[in-house]
Parts: sequence; structure tokens; C-alpha cells
Amino acid sequence: MLRGHQSWEFEHQPMILSTAAIGGPMEAKGPLADDFDLLHADIRMEQKSWEQAERTLLDEACQKAIEKAGITKDAVSFLIAGDLMNQIISSSFAARTLAMPYLGIFGACSTSMEGLALASLLVNTGSARYVLAATVSHNAAAEKHYRYPTEYGAQKPPTAQWTVTAGAAAIVAPNDGKGEHPVVTRATIGRVVDMGLTDPFNMGAAMAPAALDTLISHFRDFDLPYDYYDLVLTGDLGRVGSRILRDLMIEHHVDIPQDRYGDAGVLIYGDLPEVLAGGSGCGCSASVAYGHVQRRLRDGELRRVLVVATGALLSPISYQQKETIPCIAHAVAMEWPSAACQAGGSAP
Amino acid sequence: MLRGHQSWEFEHQPMILSTAAIGGPMEAKGPLADDFDLLHADIRMEQKSWEQAERTLLDEACQKAIEKAGITKDAVSFLIAGDLMNQIISSSFAARTLAMPYLGIFGACSTSMEGLALASLLVNTGSARYVLAATVSHNAAAEKHYRYPTEYGAQKPPTAQWTVTAGAAAIVAPNDGKGEHPVVTRATIGRVVDMGLTDPFNMGAAMAPAALDTLISHFRDFDLPYDYYDLVLTGDLGRVGSRILRDLMIEHHVDIPQDRYGDAGVLIYGDLPEVLAGGSGCGCSASVAYGHVQRRLRDGELRRVLVVATGALLSPISYQQKETIPCIAHAVAMEWPSAACQAGGSAP
Repeated sequence: MLRGHQSWEFEHQPMILSTAAIGGPMEAKGPLADDFDLLHADIRMEQKSWEQAERTLLDEACQKAIEKAGITKDAVSFLIAGDLMNQIISSSFAARTLAMPYLGIFGACSTSMEGLALASLLVNTGSARYVLAATVSHNAAAEKHYRYPTEYGAQKPPTAQWTVTAGAAAIVAPNDGKGEHPVVTRATIGRVVDMGLTDPFNMGAAMAPAALDTLISHFRDFDLPYDYYDLVLTGDLGRVGSRILRDLMIEHHVDIPQDRYGDAGVLIYGDLPEVLAGGSGCGCSASVAYGHVQRRLRDGELRRVLVVATGALLSPISYQQKETIPCIAHAVAMEWPSAACQAGGSAP
Repeated sequence: MLRGHQSWEFEHQPMILSTAAIGGPMEAKGPLADDFDLLHADIRMEQKSWEQAERTLLDEACQKAIEKAGITKDAVSFLIAGDLMNQIISSSFAARTLAMPYLGIFGACSTSMEGLALASLLVNTGSARYVLAATVSHNAAAEKHYRYPTEYGAQKPPTAQWTVTAGAAAIVAPNDGKGEHPVVTRATIGRVVDMGLTDPFNMGAAMAPAALDTLISHFRDFDLPYDYYDLVLTGDLGRVGSRILRDLMIEHHVDIPQDRYGDAGVLIYGDLPEVLAGGSGCGCSASVAYGHVQRRLRDGELRRVLVVATGALLSPISYQQKETIPCIAHAVAMEWPSAACQAGGSAP
């Protein structure tokens, strides 16, 4: 139900029954490689086009999540999916393959948490049984659509980010009370924040204020202390954007402990020089949240995590027409059930 | 809550507190002109680009719906919006202007009912107070993005449809029990149906099977007789698609009485020859549902209406890559409160 201005409290604590993350060759070189379910050596995924490669990633992530959940695809009430392609075509083709009732969404790179928030709301309110929330991005498909085809070999400034090649999906289910899966406890839906930046090669800087706005709203709406979460993960600000966010947090007294803050765009590639300022794309926060973070939650390393997925809501046309870049961030809290209960949540 | 396979029953009957529809010069020539709140004589809306014109329509529709609801924009919990532009940029810019928490959605021309279904679900479950559901399309912006810029004067086959230039919005609110506004009682979320058609100049034919699939699901999930609704309005199948749907309904024994079925794409332009097979676009079903149908509901001419918004989930790239056109349809029932109560709905 609604909490504060723009947040949802999931009092029935829907479970994240399973997650899956499928990556590409660059993701295989990064420090989180082991947290993917499958890594393709071929950036084309043996398909004829970049777009088909992207679709393959999403198909595989959805299939894997369903398989890991131990359910059949017919048990899933709804697919909620979106991606970076024009008219979110990768998601629509996945919806065709899966033949599930389908809600298409778009929040650029924040799509992952928009989807997980809505999926959790549907399950929490009894409006769905199982929901599949999924998203995808592909480096070469995104470069072709937003900047220059990778085949051109165009150079980029050091503030540019590397679109992650990954599909990721989660199955959200009603809480069965057994305490065997992480649960979703809260979500905050972001507002559009636009600081007037126009450089598509520096989206981390454009998105940082949106992440701050959502963070402030989240802690305010739930009246939580800033050290409540073991990890606050933004994604995908990259090195430049997350440095700006740290400065903004200090300025606005958002006292999240330094060692409990991370960014998916920084984590996913570590120090790989090719990625410049870090990872980005729908698959960035999704694959880190559904791969790395889920593994750490299930291993007991983390008990309370807030994922704040950031999105730059530009299009190539809006950029060419010299518009600024509207940005948004959606936050979703994933917790280990006992941690969530201790926090005063009403257990199911 | 979930009903059957893919439907939601809104037992608290959220109200459609207000609606607004803003059109362009072609809409002013059609038989539904009087049902628009404002009609622009200038297809450019005094803006510098088609994209800015589209955005203006959406801004105006949102502002008008808020004004007619008699609320302030700060009272709105969430904006749910989408459009046909790449990366739904018109909606994101409207979200920036309105500064509301924002859920971006995409369902091509079915976006109108995807948005209304989600808005009603949020209000019904106490997950929002007021929700603004909005969408927009602009003829020249859509032609430029999907086919050829209108300035080229390209010819079209008679199966082609005319993208409606309209922004439309609705404010959904918790039921106050006074019975002064139409309510939303049910929604059915569609599955992707793809019959292998590839012609973007005949989208009505591609979308008709999706409309049928959703109709069958809706009546099955709620166990309603086929003559339950005073009007079943598809949109935007146009003349060709709605003829195909009628044939499919006969074939599949979906016995909706002939005189209770209509299509937004046929209704909006009447016999205007320029529009060929009829209207299409996000603004088509939205402006007919939020303008014409709402007026008839409020005038007492209609008591129970099912709007089945259809969407062709193609992108120019998917078409150029010779992919088929995945289609979808989402259905939302709007009723006059007493009609809804008689139907066995649990009144609030």
C-alpha cells in the first residue's frame, strides 16, 4: 500500500523465488562473472543481427528464471518487461515467445526496478500469482541505436559508459512463509529530474540527481535510518556519476555509510579499461541485482539491500533536437525475511 | 484482485474522476469533434517540431484532466504514461513538466488501456491516491518515425490507417460512494498474438486476432454473458481490422450483439476519405474512450462499456529486418456505478 508520497510497502513480503542473469563476453571478463548463470563467448549469440542477439539474451534469462523457480511457464500470471530498443521490441518478442499476458514498461536503465516494483505490487495485492520481471540490453544494439554502430570504431570521452550485454529476470511469488527466499519489502517510484545536461556521453552525471531524489524520498517515506540497509546499490551511474552522487549525498545530509554504498556500473566491470566510466544499460542494474546481489543475499553476506536503478530517458531524436536529458530512478528493497521482520514489517 | 488467468476485478470500483482529450485539425473534421476538450487548428501546435507538437498535446491533456478533476497536481500519486515515439520521449517530457512519480509504459496503441488498468489497480489496492493515466499520438510525428515524413507525400494502400493526433488523460481516484462518476470494474491484460503478418500498412488485420484473444479471455475470466456490455469498443482496428474481427467473432462464437460493437478507429473519423481504413495510434482509443465514451457514460446513454485497446508492437527496425508484427490488446470495463453494482460487483 501507499507509504508517504511515492512509495509502496509490501506488507505480505512477496518472495523473489528465482532470478537469472545471462551475459556476454565483456561481462565474462569482469569481477562478477561467476554470478551469471551463463556467459556467451560470442557477442552475436549466433544470431544474424544485434537486435536478435539482444532478444536471445532476454529469452534465455526468462527461460532460466522459470526453470530455476521450478514452475511451468503457464503458472506465470504476467510478464513485465522493457528494454532500450525502439518500441521495446526485444521485450515484445520475448512476450510472443512466452505467450504470457504482458505489460510493457519503459524506464530506460531503471526498467529493472520499475518491473520488480510492479511485479511485487501485483503479487502483494493478490493481483497475480507468479510474475516474471525481466529486462535486457546489448552493447552493440544500444550503440547502434543511441550513438554509432560499433563497427565504425568511434572514439568516446572518458565519461562515457559501456552498455552491458545482459538479460536478467526474476520470478516474484506469494510468500509461502518458509523463509527460504529473499523478499521484496518496499519500493519507491521516482520522479523525473532534469538538471539541464545534454551530453549522452556523460549520463552518469545526468542521472546522479535523480538517484539522490529517490533516495531522499525512500528514506523519508519509510522513516528509515540511513544505515538501515547493508547495501545501497545505485545503477548505472558509473564512476563519474557515483562520485557526483556521493558529493550530493554529503551536501544533502543523506548519511548512507560510505562502505555500504555501491554502484552496479562500477561493480560489474571492475577496472577493465575498455569500459571507460563503467557499465550502463537496462542489463546493468538488472544483472548485478539479479545475479551478484541475489547470490550475496542467499549466501547470507547481505540481509537488507536497496537497489536504486537509474535511467536516462533520452532518445536519439530528443538528443539531436538539443533537448536535455530527463532522468529517473526507482528503488526496490530486497531483504532476507528475518531481517525484514525485525524491521517492523508485518510478516505474512 | 486476480480473476481467472489474466484479469483483475476492481472490487472497490475506482472512479474515473475526470478525463480530457485534446485533438488536432483532422479530429476537428470528424463526427466526434464535440467530444474533445480542445481542438488545435494548427497541426504543429505552434511548436518547432512534430515531436514538440506531440508533447504539447500530452501536456495539455494532463493539465486539463487535473483541472477538471478539481485537484492540484501535487495530489496525484503517480503518472502512468506512454506513447509511440522512440523511448516514449513525449511521456517522459510530460513527466518532467508535471514532476510526478512516473511509471513509463509501452503497449503501442494499447497503451491507453494498459495505463488505465494499472492506474485502477493502484487505486483499487490502496497503492495510490489519485493516478493520472495518459497517452498521446501525433500523425506527422508517427509517420516520420514509422513510415515516411508526411512532407514526402508518399502514397498509401487503402488498408493503411491514419494516426490520430490527440492527447488524452484520465484521473482515477478512490470511490467516494457518491455515485457521481463512472467507475472501473474490470481489466484483462492481453497476451501477444502474432499471426505472421508483416505489412505495417495493414495493422488492423494484424491486430484483430489479438483483440479476439483478449475478448475471449475477458468474458471467460469473469464468466460474463456476451451481451453484458452496452458497448464493446475495440481500438484501433479500423475498417479492415474490425471487419476481420467480426468474422473471427462469428467463427469463435463470441456472440457480442452486432449493434453493441464499435471500433474507435472507425468512429473517430466517420467517412472522411483521407483517413483510408480509419484512425490508429495511441491517441485513437484514448481520445474516443476518454472523450466520446465518457461523455456518453456521463449522459446516461451507456452504462457498461468495455474498451479493448489494440496495439501493434512493431518498430521500424523490426519491420526492416522482416520480422512479423506482434500484437496485443488490453481491455478495461468502465461502468456507471449502479450498473456495476447490479452486476454483482462488491460495492465499496
